[in-house]
Amino acid sequence: MFRSHTCGELRLDNAGTEVTLAGWVQTVRKFGAITFVDLRDRYGITQLYFNEDLNPQLDAEPLGREFVLQATGKVIERSNKNPNLPTGEIEILVQSFTILNKSAVPPFSIQDDTDGGDDVRMKYRYLDLRRNVIKKNLELRYAVNRATRDYLHGQGFMDIETPFLIKSTPEGARDFVVPSRMNEGQFYALPQSPQTFKQLLMVSGYDRYYQIVKCFRDEDLRADRQPEFTQIDCEMAFVEQEDILVMFEGLIKSIFKQVKGIDYADAVERITWEDAMWHYGNDKPDIRFGMKVANLKSAFNKGGEIVATGELINGADFKVFDEAETVLAIAVPGAAEWSRKQTDELTEWVKRPQIGMKGLAFIKCNADGTYKSSIDKFYSEEKLAAIAQFANAKAGDLILILAGAEERTRKAISDLRLELGERMGLRKKDEFRLLWVMDFPLFEYAEEENRWVARHHPFTSPKPDHIQTMIMNDPFIMSAVDYLKHPYATIKANAYDMVLNGNEIGGGSIRIYQRELQEKMFAALGMTEEEALHKFGFLLGAFEYGAPPHGGIAFGFDRLCAILGGSESIRDFIAFPKNNSGRDVMLDAPATIDEKQLKELSIRLSEL
Amino acid sequence: MFRSHTCGELRLDNAGTEVTLAGWVQTVRKFGAITFVDLRDRYGITQLYFNEDLNPQLDAEPLGREFVLQATGKVIERSNKNPNLPTGEIEILVQSFTILNKSAVPPFSIQDDTDGGDDVRMKYRYLDLRRNVIKKNLELRYAVNRATRDYLHGQGFMDIETPFLIKSTPEGARDFVVPSRMNEGQFYALPQSPQTFKQLLMVSGYDRYYQIVKCFRDEDLRADRQPEFTQIDCEMAFVEQEDILVMFEGLIKSIFKQVKGIDYADAVERITWEDAMWHYGNDKPDIRFGMKVANLKSAFNKGGEIVATGELINGADFKVFDEAETVLAIAVPGAAEWSRKQTDELTEWVKRPQIGMKGLAFIKCNADGTYKSSIDKFYSEEKLAAIAQFANAKAGDLILILAGAEERTRKAISDLRLELGERMGLRKKDEFRLLWVMDFPLFEYAEEENRWVARHHPFTSPKPDHIQTMIMNDPFIMSAVDYLKHPYATIKANAYDMVLNGNEIGGGSIRIYQRELQEKMFAALGMTEEEALHKFGFLLGAFEYGAPPHGGIAFGFDRLCAILGGSESIRDFIAFPKNNSGRDVMLDAPATIDEKQLKELSIRLSEL
Repeated sequence: MFRSHTCGELRLDNAGTEVTLAGWVQTVRKFGAITFVDLRDRYGITQLYFNEDLNPQLDAEPLGREFVLQATGKVIERSNKNPNLPTGEIEILVQSFTILNKSAVPPFSIQDDTDGGDDVRMKYRYLDLRRNVIKKNLELRYAVNRATRDYLHGQGFMDIETPFLIKSTPEGARDFVVPSRMNEGQFYALPQSPQTFKQLLMVSGYDRYYQIVKCFRDEDLRADRQPEFTQIDCEMAFVEQEDILVMFEGLIKSIFKQVKGIDYADAVERITWEDAMWHYGNDKPDIRFGMKVANLKSAFNKGGEIVATGELINGADFKVFDEAETVLAIAVPGAAEWSRKQTDELTEWVKRPQIGMKGLAFIKCNADGTYKSSIDKFYSEEKLAAIAQFANAKAGDLILILAGAEERTRKAISDLRLELGERMGLRKKDEFRLLWVMDFPLFEYAEEENRWVARHHPFTSPKPDHIQTMIMNDPFIMSAVDYLKHPYATIKANAYDMVLNGNEIGGGSIRIYQRELQEKMFAALGMTEEEALHKFGFLLGAFEYGAPPHGGIAFGFDRLCAILGGSESIRDFIAFPKNNSGRDVMLDAPATIDEKQLKELSIRLSEL
Repeated sequence: MFRSHTCGELRLDNAGTEVTLAGWVQTVRKFGAITFVDLRDRYGITQLYFNEDLNPQLDAEPLGREFVLQATGKVIERSNKNPNLPTGEIEILVQSFTILNKSAVPPFSIQDDTDGGDDVRMKYRYLDLRRNVIKKNLELRYAVNRATRDYLHGQGFMDIETPFLIKSTPEGARDFVVPSRMNEGQFYALPQSPQTFKQLLMVSGYDRYYQIVKCFRDEDLRADRQPEFTQIDCEMAFVEQEDILVMFEGLIKSIFKQVKGIDYADAVERITWEDAMWHYGNDKPDIRFGMKVANLKSAFNKGGEIVATGELINGADFKVFDEAETVLAIAVPGAAEWSRKQTDELTEWVKRPQIGMKGLAFIKCNADGTYKSSIDKFYSEEKLAAIAQFANAKAGDLILILAGAEERTRKAISDLRLELGERMGLRKKDEFRLLWVMDFPLFEYAEEENRWVARHHPFTSPKPDHIQTMIMNDPFIMSAVDYLKHPYATIKANAYDMVLNGNEIGGGSIRIYQRELQEKMFAALGMTEEEALHKFGFLLGAFEYGAPPHGGIAFGFDRLCAILGGSESIRDFIAFPKNNSGRDVMLDAPATIDEKQLKELSIRLSEL
């Protein structure tokens, strides 16, 4: 061992002990004949004190930043203590030292507020990983890993490894493929998730499975997407939806406790997908703050009760509202006092192309009970009061109203709500609010192909009382414009997402476990019988030999870690991430390969 | 939840309780109006008792093997107890039941001694996985996984994920490659091991790293090799070889304890590679039994002492020994009494093409102190006595002698020793003996290319006092015949293998951490400077910025599990293995892919 202690563990109690430390030179400071070195390792920083006796050696072998140094000496009390450092009460009076390895001058400073840009830090990722901020992220990631395994182990789950070289079944996302040398002209695919394998394990009787596992998707990379990413993948047999919700609330709460020391005592709230869309304009609402969306126009049939009919705004001869498909409002608490400049700025904000609205109407609910509005030409004080009441606005609030086509307006009000939450400090980084979003539609309409696609995946079960609707109706869509009138549009799935602070951190479903229903699902998605057999014959086969009821969930491990670490970027929580073109700039990969390799694989490059 | 209890947990204490179980029908037995069903799940088997009231339902919906059944009833004491079953004292008096799913008749029986052949079991792997023997294997695998993580976590190791889409660096084994769609004409490679990444993590300061990780090698598959396999991959910084040996003995002992309940109190024996080759003919000796090899001819210079000079056998005018490069003997304890038929059979055994020897000489060391030998025409009683003494034979032992070319004879005596150990019951499945084999040669000679290759890998450090030999000598091999005279042939590595019961379960080394030495190593392996930079520029770069001394080890996780499970075959310890052609016969993968996929990847198939 090159050291007797780490650079993080010595305290005043150790004074007088002879120790050997090894680590990296963080700083070298000379005061006359005396030299101080901050020596850094994974565990901390300890100050080394070189007195003048060592100057001949220091002159002969000068120390530099990031040199690897081994030093032996005595722990002594510091005269000038540093209360910000756990080791700040002591230093090492160095008796001898050895430079274990030199370092060139690093291309950026190894500090929290580094001077290195993104590109250079990615190229020298091994240096970037030395920075304390990144180290803390990877430590947090490991803590989440450990907490996950501890909880699931305690609940009887087994980690079972599923294969990486599998079969390409192009559904949804694109597969990465791997040419097989031994099976000429054939390819493996890398798994987008172990979905079918974990279902087979349920058929095999391993009723509680989990894995923390790499998955692969060859998608055009948006910011903060990685071609390889990690999932906490779980499946259970002989369970109903409720069992899964309870089990995995438990997982996340246990992670909160073990990793962040947070007791999440509250019950996890639940909302249907439909309510989420109506009340937040969004299927992953951030419920750390209110400002729910009020729908001033479209009839919303909620359990037989019509929530809005448009009567609040109709008949006022205000064309913008009259002609709009949707009119949505939020009440911003305490914002009635906002200046003209502020509301103008917000108007500009919603008119930006990313949001794409034509304008923003507002109603100020003054403290004295009066109203002032950008639309009071059209609406009487009584009307404004009625709108305010409907939008749950109180005296002192500012009501913001957007109008336009349904989908765009809904997204805009959601973006506006989040932006205001951000600006008003309501999205606190140290506050964590979980939410189950449930009862998703089973199908989505794919416009380009005029067919149904699975909203979650083709293995998700419809709600039991919607199975008949699926079985009894032909998936064929007669009129693309009226696709919403097709019975399939009403089918809800036994699917659920877990949302944390406005981010989807996991999603799952109860699965189909009957061959006939699974075949109907494949047919609904436009697969011929032959295709279904070619791609998923093994699963259909398995369902013939006693498949139990089962369901599961998968959490996006990278994102979960990022959110727990208070960051938006998953890349900072991955040791060796790829850039937005899917390149590892440190390795310089992908790269060309030898002609010999291509030949062995029986493939050629297309002429470029 | 579809059950209140599992099929493995009910005992006599539970009598009187109303319970609901769910599982698979193992057997259905009818006795007159009464029906017994053994219901099976992951946790065990419980007997269900259907009385005549249920016969109408049983007649309407007959139960069959592997049906998924949910049954509610009362726990009652069994009249006819089964002491072989943990639940054997009770049964469930069924009040109601539901068939959750039917099953076709399985293609083989779901029993320990199944009637299914290898092919059909692989095709229906999801049914094979239901068998108790396979389930026990996967449970053992998970227990080893868990024990590994517990130990390493306790020692301050961090699980850090390394990437799967990396760069192809064809050294040694062949890479699997992955065409990149976004980077036309370029390919990722799947890692053969995270070797360079774990070294970078050491450079980054994460001084204790581990991962249980999938690795990939596109090799022609021998029996019991898999294209994807799992490693326990570990690395430490600021350590010397001794620190690593102690740390990972601790890991394996901890696995023994946690998984098998074995206290492995003995110190782990150590042997140099040279001694292993001479005393066992093998670099992974099984030390559960003795029968060490005696080398009757070649001078063996062991630390200055010549161990054998050939004087025992020379000058007797026995041409077979005189002309042989090597003459090796083992003494089989208590075998002097073996019949002529037995020694003849052994002679046939060594003459088989797999062994390839021309014959077998023997010396019986009779109980009365006399000797009888197949070669006593040439050797006097005194000479035989001297040979017997040298071979450590006692009265009652049988000495077996093989002669021939060195490499073949050495391998043959090793095979013979293992075969005899097997036949004599000395290789006990429940005995575990660990051994470190150390001081491997740094280089191996590659005959076809007349150059040096790395025996372990190009990142392994020479022993400190051999570094000069490497630096001061040109790798060029003037005469292929005399390659053993090249100074490189004498260089030993700081490398070590852990051997368990004659199987290499892990191997590692102290790594090179200086750029100059690493460059010299790449040059020694015949890489040009340009090639070295193209392939490993990132590592050479990292070594310039303060790389600490480091080393590590990787264990073959699949094999470790198989040995702990008392099996030779790793395939039985992998949930979804591939066959010897690298195919997953259940999935029918690899498979052809769409023309559209090929086009997107800018590749074409070669004309076949």
